[in-house]
Amino acid sequence: MRDVSIVGIGYTPVAEAWDLELRDLATQAAEAALNDAALQGVSSLYVANMLAGQISHQENLGALVASTARLGPIEAARVEAADASGGVALRQGIMAVASGMADVVMVLGVEKYTDLMGNARLNAAATTLDAELEAEQGATPAAMAALLMHRYMHEYGLEIDAFAGFSENAHLNGSLNPAAMYRNKLRPGMFAGAPAIATPVGLFDAAPEGDGAAAVILASTEIARDMVPNPVRIAGSAVATDFVAIQQRENPMVLNAAALSAQAAMAQAGVSHDDIDLFELHDSFAILSVLALESAGFAETGTGYQFGQPDRISLSGDLPITTFGGLKARGHAGGATGIYQAVEATRHIRGTADDNQVPGARIAMIQNLGGIGAVAATHILTTAD
Amino acid sequence: MRDVSIVGIGYTPVAEAWDLELRDLATQAAEAALNDAALQGVSSLYVANMLAGQISHQENLGALVASTARLGPIEAARVEAADASGGVALRQGIMAVASGMADVVMVLGVEKYTDLMGNARLNAAATTLDAELEAEQGATPAAMAALLMHRYMHEYGLEIDAFAGFSENAHLNGSLNPAAMYRNKLRPGMFAGAPAIATPVGLFDAAPEGDGAAAVILASTEIARDMVPNPVRIAGSAVATDFVAIQQRENPMVLNAAALSAQAAMAQAGVSHDDIDLFELHDSFAILSVLALESAGFAETGTGYQFGQPDRISLSGDLPITTFGGLKARGHAGGATGIYQAVEATRHIRGTADDNQVPGARIAMIQNLGGIGAVAATHILTTAD
Repeated sequence: MRDVSIVGIGYTPVAEAWDLELRDLATQAAEAALNDAALQGVSSLYVANMLAGQISHQENLGALVASTARLGPIEAARVEAADASGGVALRQGIMAVASGMADVVMVLGVEKYTDLMGNARLNAAATTLDAELEAEQGATPAAMAALLMHRYMHEYGLEIDAFAGFSENAHLNGSLNPAAMYRNKLRPGMFAGAPAIATPVGLFDAAPEGDGAAAVILASTEIARDMVPNPVRIAGSAVATDFVAIQQRENPMVLNAAALSAQAAMAQAGVSHDDIDLFELHDSFAILSVLALESAGFAETGTGYQFGQPDRISLSGDLPITTFGGLKARGHAGGATGIYQAVEATRHIRGTADDNQVPGARIAMIQNLGGIGAVAATHILTTAD
Repeated sequence: MRDVSIVGIGYTPVAEAWDLELRDLATQAAEAALNDAALQGVSSLYVANMLAGQISHQENLGALVASTARLGPIEAARVEAADASGGVALRQGIMAVASGMADVVMVLGVEKYTDLMGNARLNAAATTLDAELEAEQGATPAAMAALLMHRYMHEYGLEIDAFAGFSENAHLNGSLNPAAMYRNKLRPGMFAGAPAIATPVGLFDAAPEGDGAAAVILASTEIARDMVPNPVRIAGSAVATDFVAIQQRENPMVLNAAALSAQAAMAQAGVSHDDIDLFELHDSFAILSVLALESAGFAETGTGYQFGQPDRISLSGDLPITTFGGLKARGHAGGATGIYQAVEATRHIRGTADDNQVPGARIAMIQNLGGIGAVAATHILTTAD
């Protein structure tokens, strides 16, 4: 098996990109990644996308992006795993290189939410839940997150404000990131006092859906060292699943897929929790940040919410999270989100994260969740020295 | 890179399965494949599906099928490449095993068309075309196939009847296959005299959409030889793409993706056209059979239609095609179709194809097209002796 590294990154700002089509976003990210790697092309392409069939009436995005981004008649496929599409597609690209079946692979995530608005988009997003046991009953992702948050608050005797620190940290980091969807800081009290999306999930808790595309280019580490001065190595990679319907899970307070994939990726990389310099987690809702910290073993069950403090999760904290704003402030670009995480971790390890830099970052963990934890992709990135 | 073989196969009949949900179909195919391989489980799962998000309101099929088919919290992903989803997913499963990142992998195709009917389903199918350049103008897959067929007839001075032999062969083979959607034989004249779907494509030309699921289980060939008495080796595997919009293709009469993937798969397998004992091609429309034969190099440009004769393509012909009825008579199960092709080729090579057996078949080529040739996956299967 060949060792795999990232040799190029590209992305668009996450935004309501009314003037850009899905294919335009993809082309911009592809071109940026090729430029970053000083390459003219790649040998194959994985496109991570969640909902373009429903939102933009466009399936078959592998072939579409290969041709519209002028990558030629190369091998291409679309990978979908709800909002974990990006992380799961990243693993497919790694396999392609690791197997020797492809040499230089682009993994590109793209989501164009604003082609559909209002309830129609809510219904589309609900197809990432269990259609029979959840969505047909009227459930949406926010509603399911609200149930989890309510239960967590009940179990541990908490109020909404206990979760505020996660969004405040995300917005603070987003304020430093020119490509973030929201660059405003949250003032004390704004989180708990916000209008409700689905009680107890409020407006400053649910991550905003935004249009965006991000791409990474992969090559074998051996080749990568000759291609670029700063390859970033994929030291660990794992995907695991759980029941899609939360009612069927053994314990709704444990994200089992997140736990399994974190354990496997850390074991492969040979790292312990103390080694990890930053953790880009999937903060589509603050409750998922809390459960991700617990499931990955950074916090004991019932204590993850205590991480919502600057000394723990800020850029200079013990375990920086959502360092460029996370889903909450950089914006949640659906199936592209896992690739944004990979791009951001790469920038940290290269030392090119500008105002968002975690000082001296050498080992980053990124974790992309899909369908409120039904699928989890965890990767560990580090230097290729 | 590890050599990869098929150690188990399973499938449901292709049918209008009103009494079965998408997840039931998947579970039946998964259980059949596990039984066939005498296995209790697999280490990872790829689900090939084209349209469940739109048709059944269900995305995230990797996690869903992993749990509903009781495969456990294993790694899972959905792969989509229009109606080539099956063939493209097969290649992902091969990469997973070849890389050493997974040991025993299930690739399962499933499509549940009948959750949506009429124009709504036509609209869903049209999302596999180019949304801007084709579907927004009212194009459907059948309409695009009709344009290709019309052009071919014009170029070579042909009438509709010139294509009849392909459907007649498919229905004859389907009549022998208990799992075929249509088991009636076509009488002379029925093909050209059929009601039009999109002139000149008629009712007995367009393949029927059916519900179905099919699965193969992959392992490294070295392990496979100890697991089962009859592993079937994947000797060649390739995916290529073309412009999705036919108007942008260099020559609409050449399926460039099909040509590139066939060449690459044959080169990898080290086989020539004469070595191939059967060719499961993508006969969603007869014109695609003709163009596939030409693009893969079995026929010169403009002569592929001449293959529509029993001595050439029947079970005892020079190059048997659509041996179990193909998409036309076995039924077109959307994103599952490429896996049905793999199952059928495996049965031939095992010598367990019953009444559909191609005598002495040792080398089979299967080719799955998506979006009227925008993407093509070609595989070559053979004995693991």
